[in-house]
Amino acid sequence: MRIEQDIMDLSAAPAEPAQFDDDFRLSLKALLVWRRDVRRFRTDALAAGALERFIQAACLAPSVGLSQPWRFVVVDDPARRQRVVETFTRCNAAALQAYDQDRRSTYARLKLAGLNEAPCHLAVFADVESEMGYGLGRQTMPQTLEYSVVAAISNLWLAARAEGVGVGWISILDPIEVAQALDIASAWKLVGYFCIGYPDYDSDSPELEREGWERRRPWESFILRR
Amino acid sequence: MRIEQDIMDLSAAPAEPAQFDDDFRLSLKALLVWRRDVRRFRTDALAAGALERFIQAACLAPSVGLSQPWRFVVVDDPARRQRVVETFTRCNAAALQAYDQDRRSTYARLKLAGLNEAPCHLAVFADVESEMGYGLGRQTMPQTLEYSVVAAISNLWLAARAEGVGVGWISILDPIEVAQALDIASAWKLVGYFCIGYPDYDSDSPELEREGWERRRPWESFILRR
Repeated sequence: MRIEQDIMDLSAAPAEPAQFDDDFRLSLKALLVWRRDVRRFRTDALAAGALERFIQAACLAPSVGLSQPWRFVVVDDPARRQRVVETFTRCNAAALQAYDQDRRSTYARLKLAGLNEAPCHLAVFADVESEMGYGLGRQTMPQTLEYSVVAAISNLWLAARAEGVGVGWISILDPIEVAQALDIASAWKLVGYFCIGYPDYDSDSPELEREGWERRRPWESFILRR
Repeated sequence: MRIEQDIMDLSAAPAEPAQFDDDFRLSLKALLVWRRDVRRFRTDALAAGALERFIQAACLAPSVGLSQPWRFVVVDDPARRQRVVETFTRCNAAALQAYDQDRRSTYARLKLAGLNEAPCHLAVFADVESEMGYGLGRQTMPQTLEYSVVAAISNLWLAARAEGVGVGWISILDPIEVAQALDIASAWKLVGYFCIGYPDYDSDSPELEREGWERRRPWESFILRR
């Protein structure tokens, strides 16, 4: 990975702008097609330095006013992990009850988190009180601070998949309980909690589609013209 | 682009999972390093089909519960574009006044949008009342619906940069005024307004950094352990 670290050394900027060819674009599309929200993990640890490479990629994301509001909390402590599992279990049970009988049986079949198997837990917060960026770009749309963190997560997800590592986003959580479990200041807002590890299997279709929960619609159907 | 369209045909799934090598990972990092929030555009039109390819890539993003809440509004009408320019101009003037004198002179120097030059305007909304996904994953964190749209925007941004096309995110806008200017239903929430076109120049550092507004911090500084 020496060569990757070189390019991440921002003080040693390449002299010429990067150029991308058809082969790269084809592989990039394949990366997007084969990226999945993974809930079934092998338990073996990530390769050394992998998580750090993914976080480096995340920090190359755009951020409103260059505010860099992303905060990555690597959760290793078993007791803290257990508290996160408990909030997931409680919130997931409550969500199940909200469905009618037909949906409920499908929901109950779904595996919605890999918290017990994934070797790596990562909580990602937005520091919504950060003064970095001096408020530029977020007077009328303050939520762009959280959006910047999502952009970082997108980078992390793709960098991980490019190394064969899966990421699962867990949102069935009480964000306040997670912040408390991790002893995080209240000025930080939870954006997502992630399981990271090698996936049990690869797929080019979402598990929610294969399980009959929802289907993907054609991209054309999402476009309007004005 | 025939081969790219083939891989985007989801009904014809590749038999074998995609594999990625060191060359691809190196190029992916370069893509992240050279992706910019572009405000200086050439006025020439995008290549035929380019915007559609970027939106295809966007629709491969993860979405909470497979809700696919992204709605892409291509804005071509000059009168509607003009109304967006007017809300930007007004919001930007208000933002300028909020800074003290030192910051104000720096802010006034910044070029924060390329609305008048970029050949393509794209507004991206989240349909926050969509029933797609049946509410899965968003009982406790409903903002994940908007987050899914940001993930789509990230894909679009990278797919564009891989074709040498620049994207600029404009958030210095009144989102209600933009929705009205585009005659968009109130159930849709504006996530971002984008200028898209060929950039005047390429760079591996943000313009806000080069102009002295803010600087990037080392990625290590954003990591905590618990």
